[in-house]
Amino acid sequence: MKKAMLAALIGTSTLLASGTVSAQAKPEDVIKFRQGVYQVVGWHTRTMGGMVKGQIPYDQAEFARNAEIVAMMSTVAPHAFAPGSDKGAPTRARPEIWSDAAGFKKVMDNFQAEATKLAQVAKTAGSVDQVRGQFSAMSKSCGACHDNYRTK
Amino acid sequence: MKKAMLAALIGTSTLLASGTVSAQAKPEDVIKFRQGVYQVVGWHTRTMGGMVKGQIPYDQAEFARNAEIVAMMSTVAPHAFAPGSDKGAPTRARPEIWSDAAGFKKVMDNFQAEATKLAQVAKTAGSVDQVRGQFSAMSKSCGACHDNYRTK
Repeated sequence: MKKAMLAALIGTSTLLASGTVSAQAKPEDVIKFRQGVYQVVGWHTRTMGGMVKGQIPYDQAEFARNAEIVAMMSTVAPHAFAPGSDKGAPTRARPEIWSDAAGFKKVMDNFQAEATKLAQVAKTAGSVDQVRGQFSAMSKSCGACHDNYRTK
Repeated sequence: MKKAMLAALIGTSTLLASGTVSAQAKPEDVIKFRQGVYQVVGWHTRTMGGMVKGQIPYDQAEFARNAEIVAMMSTVAPHAFAPGSDKGAPTRARPEIWSDAAGFKKVMDNFQAEATKLAQVAKTAGSVDQVRGQFSAMSKSCGACHDNYRTK
């Protein structure tokens, strides 16, 4: 994905849960959507993690593809937390997501920034050593949200 | 997303379920991932459908964003059908996905083509009338798979 497009996606996704559909959707549908987004994030992050840990041979194109998908999903995620979607189906989302909206936005923005940077770095990374640092930075940005806004 | 990048993504995604991780993942994890992908597809398709039907005001940038996400997910979907993921968790995937792999690939390729075209058209569509035809074409490509490869 080119920078301009990614920037445009990020621009719209910073409007937390402002989507026209999320405002109308049932809480249980928002929760399913949200969990779907994180299934996609988790799947591709695990693939990259496998390469970083040496469990899977490093493949530049495949790593970059995975990073690209996570970067796009990082722009989608903020749309998946419509107010009211704290219940209606089993969810690990903590109330602080809504009661501390500014704090939550900060960690989500950071996830976007780190995921976007990883996708950029991965485009030309000839070896796994060249993505290791930024993969770690992105993983930390995931953890910052999990630690404070997700039940254990 | 620029054409070149989308073409690159499509290039890799035509390798049905060839992902290094999907080969190692547990069937239930593949199923969760698959259902996650389709939650993301469904969410954004419903938003676009709402605009096409006049239930939601047409917003060019928002429609284009949704189309872009579905286009990317259409490249991800083929990775979510690893052999063996026909069981292990509740799934509506029919055995024909694997027994008729060539037929399945055809409908998946068509979904990619139509979703990619919609994303292109949506970039510059000043009115909902300009996306209506291609949205319909993409929806039919979804239906072609649902009719033959998904249980009712």
